[in-house]
Amino acid sequence: MELLEKLKIKPIEWIEDDPEGPKLRWLDTRLLPWEEVYRETRDFKRVAVAIKTMEIRGAPAIGVAAAYGLALAALYSNAKEPDELWNKLREAEKILAATRPTAYNLFWALRRVMDRAQSGLKRGDDVDKIIYAVVDEAKKIHIEDVRTNMELGRIGAKLIDDGDTILTHCNAGALATAAYGTAEGIMRAAIEEGKRIKVIATETRPLLQGARLTVWELKKEGIEVRLITDNMVGYVMYRGLVDKVIVGADRITADGYVANKIGTYMIAVLAHRHKVPFYVAAPSSTFDLGIEGDNIPIEERDPDEVRTVLGKLLITVKDVEVYNPAFDITPPELVTAIVTEKGIITPPYRENIARILGDKS
Amino acid sequence: MELLEKLKIKPIEWIEDDPEGPKLRWLDTRLLPWEEVYRETRDFKRVAVAIKTMEIRGAPAIGVAAAYGLALAALYSNAKEPDELWNKLREAEKILAATRPTAYNLFWALRRVMDRAQSGLKRGDDVDKIIYAVVDEAKKIHIEDVRTNMELGRIGAKLIDDGDTILTHCNAGALATAAYGTAEGIMRAAIEEGKRIKVIATETRPLLQGARLTVWELKKEGIEVRLITDNMVGYVMYRGLVDKVIVGADRITADGYVANKIGTYMIAVLAHRHKVPFYVAAPSSTFDLGIEGDNIPIEERDPDEVRTVLGKLLITVKDVEVYNPAFDITPPELVTAIVTEKGIITPPYRENIARILGDKS
Repeated sequence: MELLEKLKIKPIEWIEDDPEGPKLRWLDTRLLPWEEVYRETRDFKRVAVAIKTMEIRGAPAIGVAAAYGLALAALYSNAKEPDELWNKLREAEKILAATRPTAYNLFWALRRVMDRAQSGLKRGDDVDKIIYAVVDEAKKIHIEDVRTNMELGRIGAKLIDDGDTILTHCNAGALATAAYGTAEGIMRAAIEEGKRIKVIATETRPLLQGARLTVWELKKEGIEVRLITDNMVGYVMYRGLVDKVIVGADRITADGYVANKIGTYMIAVLAHRHKVPFYVAAPSSTFDLGIEGDNIPIEERDPDEVRTVLGKLLITVKDVEVYNPAFDITPPELVTAIVTEKGIITPPYRENIARILGDKS
Repeated sequence: MELLEKLKIKPIEWIEDDPEGPKLRWLDTRLLPWEEVYRETRDFKRVAVAIKTMEIRGAPAIGVAAAYGLALAALYSNAKEPDELWNKLREAEKILAATRPTAYNLFWALRRVMDRAQSGLKRGDDVDKIIYAVVDEAKKIHIEDVRTNMELGRIGAKLIDDGDTILTHCNAGALATAAYGTAEGIMRAAIEEGKRIKVIATETRPLLQGARLTVWELKKEGIEVRLITDNMVGYVMYRGLVDKVIVGADRITADGYVANKIGTYMIAVLAHRHKVPFYVAAPSSTFDLGIEGDNIPIEERDPDEVRTVLGKLLITVKDVEVYNPAFDITPPELVTAIVTEKGIITPPYRENIARILGDKS
């Protein structure tokens, strides 16, 4: 885990050398940028709560956390027999899968860990061996996510020119992944290559991940960033202030529909009008190759997220009706390219996603 | 002033029968929806502060308030000679004109009152007569704004179908005018005609006029309203939930460029993509027939408006750089029609604005 030791921001950490047994530690992103508070648990249900309440957020980070949720479920199940362990894992999987519906990495990571457990079960492995395999798979998902982001960043950095101003939405940074970030990973890699870039971050209502997390994360590394409200995207493009858009993704279909944080679609439409390249940065684990079109489940969250700012300030009439979709869907014709750790995917998406990610499933 | 007595919401009121002399009263819209606080003054400089700090906001309301500012300056100038009064008025005009740069109604109203004073001066009227004329002109602007909005509403209601869901941005309602509203005036008139409508209101960061004012105003009258964050406009249109957009305007050029609250341009681009009619509602006093193109001065406001929510809650890293343009500009090709009290103006705008408003200047 040498690679993980070097990271500046550790949103998720697996602590193995604790005398009371392994535990998961994470940065509670709800409290940023005010407080840097780390939480920890040995209870997979607490991990489910952390995902649901968005202490841990961002599709790749959710996947890593869910995998460790299964690792905790296995480690502390008290199961005596492989079948009993399997049933406990199935229960935990169900609870972890029910936390959030849109981010595909969640289901991908759960599936990967469960498949590993099932292989052991089929082979007739004993309980300890299956537990070891489950924990090992979670750790692999974790370290792979870091490597994937770095590779994705390196590949995507080719798209960035010296002097670019890049607009990003929400947070697809270190705080949305195991480390380094997807959209922000590309920015980091471009800077490491010596390119000078500036970032425009949208605040990203209702939960303000742009204002709270992206600004915090970029300023911490000395990357020049300017904050705007979500409704200023049109203006900054109209004024010619944006060279490129890079966003993350929560789920991408086999034909290139992109679910991402609410507001992404609007930015894509504006980028299209202003001929600003619109790039999506996502690891292959975000691709749901089993579906096509815009038929992605979109999470609707608590109306009070809109009626208030972070539950701290009521900004409207208390009982007003609201919509609160957490994501929207950007159709492939608005996406210039999708950057993955396996390469840059351009249209036509159906063919090129299959070709580049084909070796996956 | 019978018409003014009937109004439900009185954002601006001229009180003449006070023993200490006439005064201006207004609803401090910064405190809505939490508190309904009325302020009053006999000092035109206080009126300037109220406009600058957005206690009074919305282009038509700003115009009315500025006119009354000159009325107060005239009434309480202590000028003995017409020339002295004129100089005091010129000073007051300068201070009132410097409050906000974008809304054209401000300059239009100041000009109208100053022209009336100058006529008296040229005719050789005495101080009392000129004061009377200035106050009278301000009152005329006030009552005309109410009538204008009602007429604009009646004309615009033709564009609305029974069952429509109308998306609006910021607040172009009673709270942005002397009464009744422009965009909301059309909604009110449609409802008076028996049409059933629903409204989707954007919260309108940074100052949240949609969440605070539009929701408050519409709910007070029992009009069905649903609140969204600004970045949900794309989603609700993508889902087919919007039949029409109606917004107000702060300045419209001779060739149909529309300056309005930041975010309007973005909504117009989305409406265009989704073939949703995009209507602008504005009185003829919002038209600046002296300019063309997008060369409208755009106010940049205090960065802390973006870094905080209403100065009450810091939502980002304290010293982050921000953009804070208060308005943006929507080009004429995205505007389906402009509704004025003199008729509905459709493209080509240069010709049709001149034709319909030609009798104006």
